[in-house]
Amino acid sequence: MQSGGFMTEIERRRGPARGATSSTVAQAAGVAQSTVSRAFRGDPRVREDTRRLIFETAERLGYHPSWTPPAPAQARPRTRSIGVVASDLTNPFFPALLNPVHDELQLMGYRFVLFAERTDLPTGQEALLSLLNQAIDGVLVTTATLDSHLGAALAGRDLPIVLLNRYIDGMDVDRVTADNHHGGRTAVKHLLDLGHRRIGVVRGPANTSTSRDRHAGVTEGFAEAGVALDERLVREGPFSHQSGYQNARELLRLPDPPTALLCGNDVIAFGAIDAAKSLGLDVPGDVSVLGFDDVPMASWEVFQLTTVRQPLAEMARAAARLLVERIEHEGDIGAGRERLFATSLVQRSTTRRL
Amino acid sequence: MQSGGFMTEIERRRGPARGATSSTVAQAAGVAQSTVSRAFRGDPRVREDTRRLIFETAERLGYHPSWTPPAPAQARPRTRSIGVVASDLTNPFFPALLNPVHDELQLMGYRFVLFAERTDLPTGQEALLSLLNQAIDGVLVTTATLDSHLGAALAGRDLPIVLLNRYIDGMDVDRVTADNHHGGRTAVKHLLDLGHRRIGVVRGPANTSTSRDRHAGVTEGFAEAGVALDERLVREGPFSHQSGYQNARELLRLPDPPTALLCGNDVIAFGAIDAAKSLGLDVPGDVSVLGFDDVPMASWEVFQLTTVRQPLAEMARAAARLLVERIEHEGDIGAGRERLFATSLVQRSTTRRL
Repeated sequence: MQSGGFMTEIERRRGPARGATSSTVAQAAGVAQSTVSRAFRGDPRVREDTRRLIFETAERLGYHPSWTPPAPAQARPRTRSIGVVASDLTNPFFPALLNPVHDELQLMGYRFVLFAERTDLPTGQEALLSLLNQAIDGVLVTTATLDSHLGAALAGRDLPIVLLNRYIDGMDVDRVTADNHHGGRTAVKHLLDLGHRRIGVVRGPANTSTSRDRHAGVTEGFAEAGVALDERLVREGPFSHQSGYQNARELLRLPDPPTALLCGNDVIAFGAIDAAKSLGLDVPGDVSVLGFDDVPMASWEVFQLTTVRQPLAEMARAAARLLVERIEHEGDIGAGRERLFATSLVQRSTTRRL
Repeated sequence: MQSGGFMTEIERRRGPARGATSSTVAQAAGVAQSTVSRAFRGDPRVREDTRRLIFETAERLGYHPSWTPPAPAQARPRTRSIGVVASDLTNPFFPALLNPVHDELQLMGYRFVLFAERTDLPTGQEALLSLLNQAIDGVLVTTATLDSHLGAALAGRDLPIVLLNRYIDGMDVDRVTADNHHGGRTAVKHLLDLGHRRIGVVRGPANTSTSRDRHAGVTEGFAEAGVALDERLVREGPFSHQSGYQNARELLRLPDPPTALLCGNDVIAFGAIDAAKSLGLDVPGDVSVLGFDDVPMASWEVFQLTTVRQPLAEMARAAARLLVERIEHEGDIGAGRERLFATSLVQRSTTRRL
């Protein structure tokens, strides 16, 4: 478990040798210059021992990687605790995302302090913010909404922040997301390729970047294929089983029901499968269902859900590392970094050729 | 959010008036004496405003509820953080248990610090213990095993502990469990009542109190009915989907397969349903499946799982309250308290009359 000891050293030596550049560091460490840049950007492709070598060499040579002045001495005492903001844990999406975050933080010697937004209490957000005011080294937010005040509230606290899964437009912090736009296109292309034209969409909330970007991809996918998306078949709701269940039931009971349901995420898709079952409809015999995420349950025999995979565990680990790097090397890392992960179609048994 | 302020007051006034008894406190507060005792035992049946009234009255009268001397001034600084020890979050049992723990702690102004045992790393337990060594006011353990050193390790740290879900024999700490023994009897009685005699059992790990007590109940249920439990149809494994899947497949492929599968918990039952489906068997047409827990997913349409319900949310909240009471009123609470919650059968669609 590495600690922030190195930066303390650098700060102690602040001022002296300033002639060192990334290329002298690279030469002295015996690595490529691009590797030095990557190491200071916190790029996960740099191995831990290489990163350590580069940091030690930089320290020896008095190299400061960014053009911004070194950060002032830390006023905030280190707690080695990370606040992780999530929503309802019983929604299978969050455990799939949070479990690897926890494990990665534990490996790096950080504690995982959970702040779950209480959807059942109007005061949930308030309680959350008051708790965030406590001793924490950084925050990892998985539930940011586009219209949220959370970003502003957090920014005012001068805490390192990483947005995982969802981002907020114009908020200059590290963010880790999947290519949701491409994923949306992939999803609609798959259904169109199977011959479906009358496609129902049960999307997630419009005030999340994930749902907005996926839906933009879906819309683009329809347009590219020259097929019209029937807006009357588009439903919006939370990323929940209940939303999938209720919205899918409505769509499937229309006089001319859709032959396929494109769902905003896997949990919505599970609800849609349940809705079909409740109406005596076979999936995929009567209706195809497509998810998004590929949570572990998607591969269970009862679901065998065809879905657009985002690499949740890799994304989670990357976010944990970005945050810890920003905490431990504060001042060395400039503007918000972006990690975009590719999505891909996982074909199982819930979609079929029309 | 109440704080530990009251006890600080009492400690400050330590020494003076000692004549007060629980009955003078009861009289002055206008409540029954038993309510005073309950309030100091941390019994959840005492309403928060009543408890507050009793504590304030006790303070005014200088009443110390236990015969043990008041606790020495706290050496450990309060962190308002609770360590919560769990296992793999992607196992749906844990979110169902931890979500209400989190919410209850948040309401009481405590932070939820998650320590998930890493089953994939041999060093998991070590890392856990090293992290537990940090600033925490108390620990809530949901994964205690009968052969665990965790109890001993924690006891040596003089931290308030509550065991939730599982307990450790002879460990004198607060514990909150369901009546697993009765639940096991209920489960087997249900299957026997439906005419099943050839019953397969996929139980959880023998080194957990939950599995041991459920299985003792199952064994007793067979004995009471004068039916022999065929030990060759008993399989043991982790509380996981995979264990349910693999063990159920083995049992269902026997030359003379069981007509019903009694599963150690719901997640095992989901695996068993998946196993049946993978073999082309209908549930409950070809085989009945019974779970234990009643996690939210059990009521999903694709499962409609008949199961033995334990009130996970109520248990979780009770455990959170016991722990916070012990932290805030340390020294006033004596030996380990036990809260035992009743279990009950929830009949859905995965069992049928033979």
